[in-house]
Amino acid sequence: MQQPSLIVSGKWFLPGSTQAGLLLQHGLAITGDTITEIAPTATLLEKYPESRRLHTEHGLIMPGLINTHTHAPMCCFRGIADDLPLMTWLEEHIFPIEAQLTPEIVYQSALLSIAEMIKSGTTSFCDMYLFAKEVARAAAETGIRAWVGEVLYDFPSPCYGQLENGFAYIAELFQHYRNHPLISITTDPHSVYTCAPKLLSRLGQVAADTGSLYHTHLSENRQEVATCKERYGLTPVRHLDQLGLLGPNTLAAHCVMLDPDEIMLLAERGVKVSHCLESNMKLASGTAPIVELLAAGATVSLGTDGSASNNDVDLFGEMNCVAKVHKIAHLNPTVMNAETTLHAATMGGAAALSADDTIGTLAIGKKADCIVVDMDQPHLTPCYNIPSHLVYAVRGSDVLHSVINGQVVMQDRELTTIDETEILSRMTQLAKTIRAMH
Amino acid sequence: MQQPSLIVSGKWFLPGSTQAGLLLQHGLAITGDTITEIAPTATLLEKYPESRRLHTEHGLIMPGLINTHTHAPMCCFRGIADDLPLMTWLEEHIFPIEAQLTPEIVYQSALLSIAEMIKSGTTSFCDMYLFAKEVARAAAETGIRAWVGEVLYDFPSPCYGQLENGFAYIAELFQHYRNHPLISITTDPHSVYTCAPKLLSRLGQVAADTGSLYHTHLSENRQEVATCKERYGLTPVRHLDQLGLLGPNTLAAHCVMLDPDEIMLLAERGVKVSHCLESNMKLASGTAPIVELLAAGATVSLGTDGSASNNDVDLFGEMNCVAKVHKIAHLNPTVMNAETTLHAATMGGAAALSADDTIGTLAIGKKADCIVVDMDQPHLTPCYNIPSHLVYAVRGSDVLHSVINGQVVMQDRELTTIDETEILSRMTQLAKTIRAMH
Repeated sequence: MQQPSLIVSGKWFLPGSTQAGLLLQHGLAITGDTITEIAPTATLLEKYPESRRLHTEHGLIMPGLINTHTHAPMCCFRGIADDLPLMTWLEEHIFPIEAQLTPEIVYQSALLSIAEMIKSGTTSFCDMYLFAKEVARAAAETGIRAWVGEVLYDFPSPCYGQLENGFAYIAELFQHYRNHPLISITTDPHSVYTCAPKLLSRLGQVAADTGSLYHTHLSENRQEVATCKERYGLTPVRHLDQLGLLGPNTLAAHCVMLDPDEIMLLAERGVKVSHCLESNMKLASGTAPIVELLAAGATVSLGTDGSASNNDVDLFGEMNCVAKVHKIAHLNPTVMNAETTLHAATMGGAAALSADDTIGTLAIGKKADCIVVDMDQPHLTPCYNIPSHLVYAVRGSDVLHSVINGQVVMQDRELTTIDETEILSRMTQLAKTIRAMH
Repeated sequence: MQQPSLIVSGKWFLPGSTQAGLLLQHGLAITGDTITEIAPTATLLEKYPESRRLHTEHGLIMPGLINTHTHAPMCCFRGIADDLPLMTWLEEHIFPIEAQLTPEIVYQSALLSIAEMIKSGTTSFCDMYLFAKEVARAAAETGIRAWVGEVLYDFPSPCYGQLENGFAYIAELFQHYRNHPLISITTDPHSVYTCAPKLLSRLGQVAADTGSLYHTHLSENRQEVATCKERYGLTPVRHLDQLGLLGPNTLAAHCVMLDPDEIMLLAERGVKVSHCLESNMKLASGTAPIVELLAAGATVSLGTDGSASNNDVDLFGEMNCVAKVHKIAHLNPTVMNAETTLHAATMGGAAALSADDTIGTLAIGKKADCIVVDMDQPHLTPCYNIPSHLVYAVRGSDVLHSVINGQVVMQDRELTTIDETEILSRMTQLAKTIRAMH
């Protein structure tokens, strides 16, 4: 009998997002990159005495979290400018520094952000940024699962210069990562207010030709809606729909400003929503109507956005906010309950990335992306309900181990594929350069 | 020259809540329970070579956080019932179990909650609960600074039975903790909807006679306001004011439902507000108008409420929510900036407890209540602005050491006055009893 490469076991085993699915003293067997068996720990140990074991006495095994909208390298700007109006923040702080970015800063910053993501339970992320080759390289080297795209818009880019070079740049990305086990390339028009209809449509064709996700910012705030209406006589959602760009491969980040018809339209078109609540709060954009989107049958996932406007990439913190903010927005404590919120951060994320057949739950045949949470802590004791704890009490720092695609990328909070000391030291040095750019 | 008992030093030294106050490579000298000197680390080490040292290379020294409204023992109910309407939650879940509480459960639960508070940076808390003698005992034994009160209301209490016994119970508390270095006793009418005017007034006299805080829930939600108007023809705030019970010793928790005149009235009367945002969110009560209260000149502090409705007592998480929720409530990213929010969790808390002359900042002559945050972490690198990091990125688990009243109560995340393993094990056992009560 083939021995699995790894057995992960603990006290609690949560294959999905519901308390009803919880198993006790179970584990999973991983062979290569795939979950090949789920069984009582004792059974697994008896059957496979020679497999590598990762057992945690007070551990909870669960699916890794999925972050569907990030600008990972923006961690290099974390805290450099806060509590400012959006346009002041962008035009006087972020854009001037971004204009001076280098591939090296992006690469090092992506490594740092990936370190933070793994250390807070994320096993997959979907990133849109400049110098995306560096983000993809950092992800591939560190073994995290990633969807990566180079952001395109009508003005010259600090990365590729003129727009035509941008198409060449993304063609190379698609070519380089064709059939990569961890990295998928996406097609990323920035937004309706920075991309003319021609660019939006041309990228729609790229997405169709490559079978990739069409990942864009959509209806993030009032100003975007006003600008779009002024230019095209339509809201951003209707504008994209008129261009034929709303479909099941569209991943729309934010979706804060939606009217009831737009909610129905996004659901009907099968658009995937990335809800970036903490960033929308920090930039005072508003509260996306995800309760209504879910009721309409839309796919809702969670994203942290960049850590310059969050200021972290911790999806446990994000879940806590999501579950609570919508309760006050509706003055109803039953909305976005713990299981619904946990689902958005796991299977919702997988569905948003059209990867629900391979990740998002722990099931035989799926890719082995799981995390182990250390439940033996004051803030998690006693434990009556696992989804409640995961949403309302667990912090990112409670994640003890992380396995991605069958590889242990963190054990006992030590990263195995990233030299954490080195990356912290490099970023502290780079921050001096960045501060000088500011 | 007298050697200080302890020198605490690190890379960053934040005496208050503003970046402008930040010092580099400074430390503080503690003699007994008091801060006796603040100076460059090198100076302190040279002057006091024999003092005990607590040096953290990448550490940030800052004032301990102050939690002004807790029901600490409610951690024993954490996650037992969530996402329910308030009255269902209280009447079908919390009240029936509370009726069966024992002093032992309260004592063990208070110990657990104190462990969680210390491990997330809180050095002072103000607690209202049943069996308050047990809370006070747990606080005194563990060396945390605490304001503790037995909650009184018109119906029989699981602790003291008939109301008259309640007065005897609190008289004993006041007597026992007279002049205690860490424990102050408060006078705690539950609310305007559970206490008749006679009880509210009689407790007002107790507070005046004892010079204690008058700590009560006030205007927490719509239902409370409706009930109070129906019974007394006045809102809760105006009802208390008519009884002459709004003053500088009044600590009012929640204050969610306030009209503009009430905001001015609370400020004019010098009432101290405990803002319990995460609990108000989870129970869908609403968003307290603290931006307006601060503009009116009121004292605003932060509370976590009980961890059955939060579900933690982590003030770092609370600050993150507070800074962000008010931004969307006002659609203005400049409100509740990092420094204002950090002030509420430190000096605001001290002022709310009428203890701003002794705690809330790190200054010579004040009590030595400080924490050290480990800044050498992916989610805190790079570091441009300390208050921004503390509010938007630091987690409770980043607190490395804690000193309260000159005593090191946590070093390298190990509690020195609480046997963490034992308390976790006891609570896990007690949870079986509690689940059976449910």
